[in-house]
Amino acid sequence: MELALAEARAAEARGEVPIGAVVVASTGEVLARAGNEVEARNDPTAHAELLVIRAAGEKLGAPRLVDCDLYVTLEPCAMCATAASFARLRRIVFGAYDPKGGGVEHGPRIFAQPTCHHAPEVVGGVSASQAEILLKGFFAARR
Amino acid sequence: MELALAEARAAEARGEVPIGAVVVASTGEVLARAGNEVEARNDPTAHAELLVIRAAGEKLGAPRLVDCDLYVTLEPCAMCATAASFARLRRIVFGAYDPKGGGVEHGPRIFAQPTCHHAPEVVGGVSASQAEILLKGFFAARR
Repeated sequence: MELALAEARAAEARGEVPIGAVVVASTGEVLARAGNEVEARNDPTAHAELLVIRAAGEKLGAPRLVDCDLYVTLEPCAMCATAASFARLRRIVFGAYDPKGGGVEHGPRIFAQPTCHHAPEVVGGVSASQAEILLKGFFAARR
Repeated sequence: MELALAEARAAEARGEVPIGAVVVASTGEVLARAGNEVEARNDPTAHAELLVIRAAGEKLGAPRLVDCDLYVTLEPCAMCATAASFARLRRIVFGAYDPKGGGVEHGPRIFAQPTCHHAPEVVGGVSASQAEILLKGFFAARR
């Protein structure tokens, strides 16, 4: 989660929403790390989670990240949660809960849907205060 | 939708699930067209819809595809529906309904979620039989 927080801080420094993510293999190897790049790429799908899932798939040469874990500083949205299911991730560890935009413990609760084929194990609230401070600071500065 | 179906057929010829998508500007200009590339890219997020949303954003130089429409041969999944909302697409026209994997008229019904900020207009069932024949043929050949 420290690496994910570092990516979130780097994203903030680039003017992006400060969210960071990391994909780790079962061996402990970091397969991919990224922060949000929506603005830089002009890509509404360039959330940190999607970027690391794509990069890890490319690195492993497989579209399924079996036995891999995702660390992300904020509860994933419905897009990223669905992508994590498609990627067959083993576990998702996230920081702050997101009642407005989250899709795991809030909103569509993607992994609880009867049509969801693979539900990763979920651990929420890890280093949540650090992620929250980053996000609150970012949005407060823009108001 | 004819262009999207052509992309679906091209995807099938590459060994991908036959789904195609197109993003069209309000002027009628085709901004992006693609078929599924999950296998070729080793990328679980490389659904046709995500590929065209990303490509259209890059072409327009903006992460929001204001006044643009998405044509896709199958009802989008929750990942792609959420991406379409983030992209601020005006309208989604899709072919076959997808009770098992769809996220618009089925499952998490993304645009009906109280936390969904932007719900595109949705028109389903357009050229549905052609899309269904493609998909059924593809999966029957793999059983």
